[in-house]
Amino acid sequence: MLPPYKLVSRENKPDYTVVRVGDCLIGGETPVVIAGPCAVEEEKMLVELARQLKRMGVQVLRGGAYKPRTSPYSFQGLGADGLRILAEAGRAAGMPVITELTDVRYLPEVCRYAQIIQIGSRNMQNFELLKEVGRVGYPVLLKRGLSATLEEWLLAAEYILAEGNPEVILCERGIRGFETYTRNTFDINAVAAVKNLSHLPLIADPSHGTGRRELVLPVARAALAAGANGLMLEVHPAPENALSDGPQSLPPGELAVFMEELRGAGVGCCSARVSA
Amino acid sequence: MLPPYKLVSRENKPDYTVVRVGDCLIGGETPVVIAGPCAVEEEKMLVELARQLKRMGVQVLRGGAYKPRTSPYSFQGLGADGLRILAEAGRAAGMPVITELTDVRYLPEVCRYAQIIQIGSRNMQNFELLKEVGRVGYPVLLKRGLSATLEEWLLAAEYILAEGNPEVILCERGIRGFETYTRNTFDINAVAAVKNLSHLPLIADPSHGTGRRELVLPVARAALAAGANGLMLEVHPAPENALSDGPQSLPPGELAVFMEELRGAGVGCCSARVSA
Amino acid sequence: MLPPYKLVSRENKPDYTVVRVGDCLIGGETPVVIAGPCAVEEEKMLVELARQLKRMGVQVLRGGAYKPRTSPYSFQGLGADGLRILAEAGRAAGMPVITELTDVRYLPEVCRYAQIIQIGSRNMQNFELLKEVGRVGYPVLLKRGLSATLEEWLLAAEYILAEGNPEVILCERGIRGFETYTRNTFDINAVAAVKNLSHLPLIADPSHGTGRRELVLPVARAALAAGANGLMLEVHPAPENALSDGPQSLPPGELAVFMEELRGAGVGCCSARVSA
Amino acid sequence: MLPPYKLVSRENKPDYTVVRVGDCLIGGETPVVIAGPCAVEEEKMLVELARQLKRMGVQVLRGGAYKPRTSPYSFQGLGADGLRILAEAGRAAGMPVITELTDVRYLPEVCRYAQIIQIGSRNMQNFELLKEVGRVGYPVLLKRGLSATLEEWLLAAEYILAEGNPEVILCERGIRGFETYTRNTFDINAVAAVKNLSHLPLIADPSHGTGRRELVLPVARAALAAGANGLMLEVHPAPENALSDGPQSLPPGELAVFMEELRGAGVGCCSARVSA
Repeated sequence: MLPPYKLVSRENKPDYTVVRVGDCLIGGETPVVIAGPCAVEEEKMLVELARQLKRMGVQVLRGGAYKPRTSPYSFQGLGADGLRILAEAGRAAGMPVITELTDVRYLPEVCRYAQIIQIGSRNMQNFELLKEVGRVGYPVLLKRGLSATLEEWLLAAEYILAEGNPEVILCERGIRGFETYTRNTFDINAVAAVKNLSHLPLIADPSHGTGRRELVLPVARAALAAGANGLMLEVHPAPENALSDGPQSLPPGELAVFMEELRGAGVGCCSARVSA
Repeated sequence: MLPPYKLVSRENKPDYTVVRVGDCLIGGETPVVIAGPCAVEEEKMLVELARQLKRMGVQVLRGGAYKPRTSPYSFQGLGADGLRILAEAGRAAGMPVITELTDVRYLPEVCRYAQIIQIGSRNMQNFELLKEVGRVGYPVLLKRGLSATLEEWLLAAEYILAEGNPEVILCERGIRGFETYTRNTFDINAVAAVKNLSHLPLIADPSHGTGRRELVLPVARAALAAGANGLMLEVHPAPENALSDGPQSLPPGELAVFMEELRGAGVGCCSARVSA
Repeated sequence: MLPPYKLVSRENKPDYTVVRVGDCLIGGETPVVIAGPCAVEEEKMLVELARQLKRMGVQVLRGGAYKPRTSPYSFQGLGADGLRILAEAGRAAGMPVITELTDVRYLPEVCRYAQIIQIGSRNMQNFELLKEVGRVGYPVLLKRGLSATLEEWLLAAEYILAEGNPEVILCERGIRGFETYTRNTFDINAVAAVKNLSHLPLIADPSHGTGRRELVLPVARAALAAGANGLMLEVHPAPENALSDGPQSLPPGELAVFMEELRGAGVGCCSARVSA
Repeated sequence: MLPPYKLVSRENKPDYTVVRVGDCLIGGETPVVIAGPCAVEEEKMLVELARQLKRMGVQVLRGGAYKPRTSPYSFQGLGADGLRILAEAGRAAGMPVITELTDVRYLPEVCRYAQIIQIGSRNMQNFELLKEVGRVGYPVLLKRGLSATLEEWLLAAEYILAEGNPEVILCERGIRGFETYTRNTFDINAVAAVKNLSHLPLIADPSHGTGRRELVLPVARAALAAGANGLMLEVHPAPENALSDGPQSLPPGELAVFMEELRGAGVGCCSARVSA
């Protein structure tokens, strides 16, 4: 029924791909947690937060330097300075970092500072950008577009693999629908379906997928139960002051409790969870 | 932000409602499983299936007698005969039964044969029907409309409670979206959100929510992890011959394995799963 | 590609159906305008409005007596009293009237007072209701469901024709989407497509289709240009005081200007507008 | 209700913007027609088609050289060669040309060969690209994203104006919805709403907006009736052989008849059509 996937398809490669970043295996038995603020803001605060996250068991630090914002008058990220701060915080805490690439011209800079390149929802079908990240030796996390079908999403990943880069991590982050209570509609069907259709690792982003702090952890549990290989979570030391995405950011204390829960029964569930 | 719920709201009644049907508690600590064929077809087959389901631990038998079908030329259900067969199968297996009510004129008949009245998605805003089931002493399972917002769904439940019937069970069954790979988009955000907003029990229907057999159990696990109080699953002894919904029906063998899994670690997860 | 339409299909009946109501031909060369308040409120006001509408050239008076409302605590319509008032206003102005039927039990009453029976969006797949109106000798205006596909809508009409009533008028009234600026998304593709696929008359309701007064007339013009056979418009003498749908109701003065425009160039366009 | 538009807003600039391209005024009294094949294919064929279009009264020639395609294995366009061929055809016929820009690196080339730069739906929120086209002295046609709200679309235009380029033409091309009969859902509400909210010219693309040849012209008429300033239409001498978008391409003969119709009553309608 679904069309000409070649390289991303489990029919052609039945065993799941595992992407290694430092000590961290994405796509293996243990769920991976990527966390950090939506945008890189202030250095001292980020270094401190990164150390806290590391202590909790978070494996990868996230933070946006080039921020795609709906309005030209909103905070646009710190750019190159943000990249440097993010890398510094990662180094201080001993964690690899991930950040979003929004233009081919920033690729060398992003590759210099980050260990994983993120392609955001708005650029899921920016095919020129996909081809370029297909030519570098860095893992790429590819977020699903706001209204991308599974087919379109998997074919966007195919663009990257077709250029020679096999290290693609898919990220479900919610789709656009009619509901106004939540920011997006986290698509749990997509998690289950993609783990059937593709061998690529899949990460869930319930922060964007719900847009409401109180829904993030229930949906995170659901995503892992449906087969996701990990989570990407927005965390901020003072969500109410965040320069972006405050309402969906967890305070570090809530994340710490959840990481404990994951280390307990949650992780055990994980080995049983891929059925197919 | 959300509007004038009165009776369905957790603000007005913080502790969760538990609906008792025979020995079965819907909304309590243990997830409830409702299962059966989409439509009641043949008596002997249904009695046998019901006994199998009972042995697996399924608590409630489902089966449609009055079937709302998109085309007037599709199988429309067995009507009153179907009700009688369903009741007979429930009695033989020692299980309460649930069936869909599609018109106020069938209410006495449905009340005579079934222990739970189901209001289907297409009738979620059939307010005259809602008012009538609000006046009987039977539990009502209210499915979410295909493109109903959370607000519309909760206000539909409010219609039933406002008439004096407090025994409403909500059922998330997937919403309509742009994806063509799945039949509907199961809304996991809705599960988490409704358990926050309302005290009513919530059941997940991943059979309709996905429309594909291979996705039913991963999404079932996800729904329980997000806080659902139970599952409604379509089962058919020979899905390829089912008169309706074959592609999303589980064969009994697959359900039996899942019921084992639920009795194991799954149920334990359940006590931890309502956070709010 | 599209499935088993029989009676509604233009393949089986190439020439367009014209429904006669009094002197008014729905589906003929000249576009028909149906107008009136969302809900019947006060008799004297409605009689006066009806006479005004008649003088402008409006052919059918609309008004809701049984109102399907999202919340049980909103104004529910005047019921049987509303029907009587509506009929009185129609008689006073010399116009046929249309009103919504929400339950099979009200059918005799609605048939007694109204000349066209409206089935609302929320009841588009209330198949028991469709079958009942398929057995009476009254024209039925069938609104499209909020998220009904063209196939589902045409098959709902098929239910009515299959019971023996050929006088069905389709009504496009906007679909649910992600846009929050408008109440619904008027589906102009549906107008063009349905005039190709079916011989039934099609009326456009840009009041519900947009939900904003300033968009009603531009979208009305568009619907006629795409092939609609007429319009259904909400009008209220004092929109800001309307008991429902005020923001999308036109004041009579604006409608009068538009009726002039229709009598001019607009109507001439009409004969050229069905191509297929 | 709608947020911080500054430069695109009619509140700040009540009179409509007119963009001049050669002799052609986009946003003035007379509707403009932009037409051509989806993709530039073969030179001789395109030159001939361009001359035909010019004779019919088409004002601008369209053709894609860099094609954003869902699959990496589909025809990707002729690239720089395509640009050269398009420019040659425009010159031969005496028409300005428009083509899509998919990456900042192709900007000099596109500016060398085309008179209008098109930003496609998939790049509507490629903000780096928007900023770059905001810095050149060329008109930019900005297509609405597949699931962009009006607010997001207008703010994307704001990015271009904020960089100093006031010559932005908006293009409604259909949104993604649940309907499978059509490729997209042409949003007629958006046409009416944007002409109220913004002073920028608006072009309708019913080829992508419907995806079906037989619906293109009825929806084109509707768009003009709702206030659009012109049309963008896909035309191909042999649609069944087109390398892309064949099913929605008009044969030249059908377009010629429509251009006659436009020259007649249609254009007269146009002066009456902006109300606001």
